[in-house]
Amino acid sequence: MKKPLILVTNDDGITAPGLRTLVMLMKTLGDVIVVAPDSPQSGMGHAITLDSTLYSKKMKTNTDDTGNEEYSCSGTPADCVKLALQELLDRKPDICVSGINHGSNSSINVIYSGTMSAAIEAGIEGIPAIGFSLCDYNWDADFSHAGSFITKIVTQALTNGIPKGVVLNVNIPKLEKKYLKGIKICRQAKANWKEKFDKRISPMGKDYYWLTGKFELLDKGEDTDEWALANGFISVVPTQFDLTAHHAIQELNSWVFRG
Amino acid sequence: MKKPLILVTNDDGITAPGLRTLVMLMKTLGDVIVVAPDSPQSGMGHAITLDSTLYSKKMKTNTDDTGNEEYSCSGTPADCVKLALQELLDRKPDICVSGINHGSNSSINVIYSGTMSAAIEAGIEGIPAIGFSLCDYNWDADFSHAGSFITKIVTQALTNGIPKGVVLNVNIPKLEKKYLKGIKICRQAKANWKEKFDKRISPMGKDYYWLTGKFELLDKGEDTDEWALANGFISVVPTQFDLTAHHAIQELNSWVFRG
Repeated sequence: MKKPLILVTNDDGITAPGLRTLVMLMKTLGDVIVVAPDSPQSGMGHAITLDSTLYSKKMKTNTDDTGNEEYSCSGTPADCVKLALQELLDRKPDICVSGINHGSNSSINVIYSGTMSAAIEAGIEGIPAIGFSLCDYNWDADFSHAGSFITKIVTQALTNGIPKGVVLNVNIPKLEKKYLKGIKICRQAKANWKEKFDKRISPMGKDYYWLTGKFELLDKGEDTDEWALANGFISVVPTQFDLTAHHAIQELNSWVFRG
Repeated sequence: MKKPLILVTNDDGITAPGLRTLVMLMKTLGDVIVVAPDSPQSGMGHAITLDSTLYSKKMKTNTDDTGNEEYSCSGTPADCVKLALQELLDRKPDICVSGINHGSNSSINVIYSGTMSAAIEAGIEGIPAIGFSLCDYNWDADFSHAGSFITKIVTQALTNGIPKGVVLNVNIPKLEKKYLKGIKICRQAKANWKEKFDKRISPMGKDYYWLTGKFELLDKGEDTDEWALANGFISVVPTQFDLTAHHAIQELNSWVFRG
């Protein structure tokens, strides 16, 4: 049987330890091709490069790897997936995995996430896709407890497929393996960021701001990704790119648009 | 009665004719504050500025306007809304309107849209929000047929509120006013872009790409935004930022995660 073709990408850039971990895990499941940004792209949301050119570079195989093809790309995570599918791969991949992100993409973070935008882009193109994130922002975070769970989730996705129009948003708590309780299918928790702008003055006398913020959970549900993560589970949220709020259509139809 | 406070933003930049049109329209409905990018941000999706600084500049009032406050911001559309709400405005706006975008944000375009990301950001912060787009990419597009409809939609939103967790994605066809049939509440059509990368060689001998593409409608429904636009209606899609595919939770719960 032909091995599955697995497209690996991320938003932290092609050298990120999270991506290198994911590549090693995916090699146990199939043939791996990497197309990932040449520099960090965190917080890029679903940005694409419209008014500028894209560069792509075929990389030398890393010495710790065994011969998979790798390309870096000057664009966003969504650009990487588009370029991979249209230009760089000679067949459609069986699955696209993005990550492992250094930092959480649970709850409202999914909206800002470059990791998830890459997965969603693949989903739009009809390819089963999963974004993986570890709730630890450190560059030298420990990914060792995540491996067996990631392999299980990807194996299930390759076996069962993923429902049409859906991509998976997987978040892994920062916990020692012995404390991990398993995998939980969840909904996205209601939350937002309470921003605070740190206002400073440049050496040239100009005001500028750094965006900082505090995460605010607005949801007490026990079926959410935040609950799962806080209680030792890996959260899996089925995520869609049909943004229609179907439940609101009827209410809006009662609006009066005269004349 | 106190006039409503209306925050106006966009993704084409503070000088865009679409934004100037929206400002003039909103002045008939309330007090207007503009916080918009200092340069075009199309295709920025829900990007935010995490690893860099933000500048904001208070603008001189335009001569064609009558004294509303305006700020340009070096960041993305989502940054503009965050900065407006946390730093620049002294009270919570009653509504946030984004646009009028030069170009369509119907169907799958909502995912890539800076216009809609600004509206969604306001929605996340609990502010009623609407993105307006004209299906005409020209910088000197004719917005005159859109005015009365935009005013009606914003008036209804100020009167009735917008359902919680929902922002409105409004697209306006490029049509003479006499051919416009009215406003239709719709769902997001299934569609994607068939990308084509235009590969070129730089004067320095380096390969590079331009992203181009062709829009592919994959949906024959007559309740979609694409159908409405093609049939002379202004489309209004209630759009949500809870991306959970609730219908898929049950299927995923049947997956087997052994050991």
